[in-house]
Amino acid sequence: MTAKRWRTAVSGYDTEHIQISGYRVRDLMRNLDFGGTLFVLYQQRVPSPQEARLLNAILVSVIDHGIVVPSVVARMVAASGVPLQACAAAGILTIGDTHGGAGEQVARKLCEEVSAARQAGRELAEHARELVTQARSRKQRIEGYGHPLHPNGDERVDVLVEMARELELLGPHLELALAIEDELAKQASRRLPLNIDGVMAATLMDLGFDWRLARVFVFVPRAAGISAHAVEEVRREPGWRVAARPDEIEYDGPSIRDFPHSAAEP
Amino acid sequence: MTAKRWRTAVSGYDTEHIQISGYRVRDLMRNLDFGGTLFVLYQQRVPSPQEARLLNAILVSVIDHGIVVPSVVARMVAASGVPLQACAAAGILTIGDTHGGAGEQVARKLCEEVSAARQAGRELAEHARELVTQARSRKQRIEGYGHPLHPNGDERVDVLVEMARELELLGPHLELALAIEDELAKQASRRLPLNIDGVMAATLMDLGFDWRLARVFVFVPRAAGISAHAVEEVRREPGWRVAARPDEIEYDGPSIRDFPHSAAEP
Amino acid sequence: MTAKRWRTAVSGYDTEHIQISGYRVRDLMRNLDFGGTLFVLYQQRVPSPQEARLLNAILVSVIDHGIVVPSVVARMVAASGVPLQACAAAGILTIGDTHGGAGEQVARKLCEEVSAARQAGRELAEHARELVTQARSRKQRIEGYGHPLHPNGDERVDVLVEMARELELLGPHLELALAIEDELAKQASRRLPLNIDGVMAATLMDLGFDWRLARVFVFVPRAAGISAHAVEEVRREPGWRVAARPDEIEYDGPSIRDFPHSAAEP
Amino acid sequence: MTAKRWRTAVSGYDTEHIQISGYRVRDLMRNLDFGGTLFVLYQQRVPSPQEARLLNAILVSVIDHGIVVPSVVARMVAASGVPLQACAAAGILTIGDTHGGAGEQVARKLCEEVSAARQAGRELAEHARELVTQARSRKQRIEGYGHPLHPNGDERVDVLVEMARELELLGPHLELALAIEDELAKQASRRLPLNIDGVMAATLMDLGFDWRLARVFVFVPRAAGISAHAVEEVRREPGWRVAARPDEIEYDGPSIRDFPHSAAEP
Repeated sequence: MTAKRWRTAVSGYDTEHIQISGYRVRDLMRNLDFGGTLFVLYQQRVPSPQEARLLNAILVSVIDHGIVVPSVVARMVAASGVPLQACAAAGILTIGDTHGGAGEQVARKLCEEVSAARQAGRELAEHARELVTQARSRKQRIEGYGHPLHPNGDERVDVLVEMARELELLGPHLELALAIEDELAKQASRRLPLNIDGVMAATLMDLGFDWRLARVFVFVPRAAGISAHAVEEVRREPGWRVAARPDEIEYDGPSIRDFPHSAAEP
Repeated sequence: MTAKRWRTAVSGYDTEHIQISGYRVRDLMRNLDFGGTLFVLYQQRVPSPQEARLLNAILVSVIDHGIVVPSVVARMVAASGVPLQACAAAGILTIGDTHGGAGEQVARKLCEEVSAARQAGRELAEHARELVTQARSRKQRIEGYGHPLHPNGDERVDVLVEMARELELLGPHLELALAIEDELAKQASRRLPLNIDGVMAATLMDLGFDWRLARVFVFVPRAAGISAHAVEEVRREPGWRVAARPDEIEYDGPSIRDFPHSAAEP
Repeated sequence: MTAKRWRTAVSGYDTEHIQISGYRVRDLMRNLDFGGTLFVLYQQRVPSPQEARLLNAILVSVIDHGIVVPSVVARMVAASGVPLQACAAAGILTIGDTHGGAGEQVARKLCEEVSAARQAGRELAEHARELVTQARSRKQRIEGYGHPLHPNGDERVDVLVEMARELELLGPHLELALAIEDELAKQASRRLPLNIDGVMAATLMDLGFDWRLARVFVFVPRAAGISAHAVEEVRREPGWRVAARPDEIEYDGPSIRDFPHSAAEP
Repeated sequence: MTAKRWRTAVSGYDTEHIQISGYRVRDLMRNLDFGGTLFVLYQQRVPSPQEARLLNAILVSVIDHGIVVPSVVARMVAASGVPLQACAAAGILTIGDTHGGAGEQVARKLCEEVSAARQAGRELAEHARELVTQARSRKQRIEGYGHPLHPNGDERVDVLVEMARELELLGPHLELALAIEDELAKQASRRLPLNIDGVMAATLMDLGFDWRLARVFVFVPRAAGISAHAVEEVRREPGWRVAARPDEIEYDGPSIRDFPHSAAEP
């Protein structure tokens, strides 16, 4: 095994310039905002103003969400006397398969199903009906619908759908996602609204991103939100956190027992 | 020690709404971009369009920088078969006191010196002259000037200074930072240009941010850049990375020696 | 969704005592070493002195390995001005599916194959022959054999096999692993020795651990090794690390190009 | 800036051997346990059996402590669908200045005061009396005494003190720490017992370790404990964790307010 040369097509620098995918950073600074530059970073092309705007709205939608898992973790680390970037690092570790990865799987599924519908020459509404019927007959859950903290729907979802429509960026992935939502309402007894993971997955796919990247659009903006929590924790809550209320912890393993000296004494 | 109630003034949610500092996220999505929302998150007020634009330019300036420490770390973790958010977490851990924290100290120093000049009723240019004279007589380095990779100056710095001026956001901190640069050129034999840490520190202070936050504006955008590197590593470089070329590693500790059985045999 | 009570059977404490799986920590301190206590933590029983000794040898075998991926990452983070535990955290993030997880998959496979052989009433040597024949006909690699840095075999493997034998802890998993090694030598043209991942997997399974835990026995001891590297980096190598030699980095993306003002100007 | 050659005196390898500080890993596996090898790693010499035994007891003392900050963080990350080493990484990030670093400062202080007493030709008991008198007159807290969860003393401390005495390894640092405890009892109205941070600091210094390493002896063993928690979380607690009981979270920032369209509309 020989050492490899490091190669990259992401970005480069010399003493004079720094560039991302061939665009000088100085030009990106003057012409694009953060969301727009993120687009260049992952798609190697300059987005239209509409694309940049929708991507910014996606980033803003998940920038923070009060005291939930990522911010609690960041706060606990902050309370332990640790630099800010390490609090953020701990917090974004929680954007795993259960959260951000959920969006990833929805994104992948939407891509596959849009392709499948096209190949079968089937309307997306019809394809959605099939998918829901099939899932219900197999008693399978369709990911991307329903949210435990927002049972009646989430206004962030509504805004992203409206903006995608207004900006003329509502493509087949979001169309299919909404058609599934309609079918779920028709076939099921209760409404199961498209959730934030689902709408992010759909709009990101319509914007042309790779589904493997879905969680990036959660943990990058959330790094900002959890940093605000970490800073607040240090300023407002002196001392370290009690992890859980003592009366909430239950040890339910073996009872205290004597050490079996006969068995393990060296 | 009793368990504490968790309090926050950062953001909150109920089943209907999510809000950041009292602003509904749905309104932030429609009215601000990512940079603008970051402003709300840390300053609890809506920025002017000029302030949001300058903050976006700051974020874009450090979004990526080719293959340097944070991206190498993220790539090595990625090559080890680890989810994307963990690669980003490892990479941002490197935004420590040497990098982002450098900006932090510059920001703090600029705040203190602007205050000191005001209290002394002294012009910033005059204050800069004193600072440089003093530093040179004590043979102290002034942080925020010079960059090993960009010895002749960094065009990102020029763009931020120009934008701050054009947007009428060039305040006392950047004024002082530039005055120090001028003095360094006058008093020293060689030009020591304001570097990216220095200009970020100065513009962030002029925008009203707390100096303790300086590194946030590095690791949040860089989380995006290093994620692009991590994704590329997985796609283009199969197998794990050799850490360094074998001929570059030198073991210079004690020579191989026999185990001192007499001393430590249990 | 209601908040859950936190439950644990791992360990507990009150104002007087701390216990692990019912054993008072004070008794564990007096009667077991670190390896032995790790055994209690994961198997809820006190190991025999032989079991504790073999587990210690496993831990020692991977405690450090010079300048390789985990230590390079820890060193780069250390050079960035970051506390020691964060350097260790970054380093152990690299013990992912490519390294520690490799052992995990070998462990799982050995468990399944030992069960399969038993169910089929087949000798392990015979089962090994089948496995190798099958893998070769399908051109599949059998994980746990061969090591790029130790092509002629790894003395740590030999020591663990010898110790397992001497301590009378060589069970069916290691027996099968060795039988596969023999078969590979017979059927293939070149020797493909059992590697450290393979022997760790086999001995840990013979000791009764769950295969899902295999990587714990790598990253816990290695946390010690990489911390030694992080400390050395800070003491001996002032300043931050250049990530790679400039002449080793190749940017191979699009060439520098002008910003398409017509397309993206807002 | 030219790229540096990577140097290390920690450990090295070639195709045949791996060695730590010149000792072949194969010899360490056969002759030392994990604690003993940790000693070699940080002190470059083979410990006596007594030293290895005391170091093992130190490691065991902090291997786990029920559901407290590090294990809660590791559990929350685990519940988010993240690999085991990333759960451990997040958990050990909490061993910061508030916890492990506390021990670090105690260790440093003990070193300095033992030196100061020697230079002044003063008995340690007398030096302790001065220190306590001085601290009380300045209303300063002496770190390393008192523990919120173990107000009446901690049996781990007693065991370490007893073992240090039995193994004839009770040196000046622990002697001074105990003398301070006695003085605190004499001069203060209530007993403020030596805590686990304090006793670890003192015994590690008596064993000859550098005070900068103190937290290593917390986060390395605790990586094992928190991994057990992470594994249990995944096995026993399906779904992701609610961060805190909703009725325990209080948002106390600005009230919901309308977006100031006039101010920020682009």
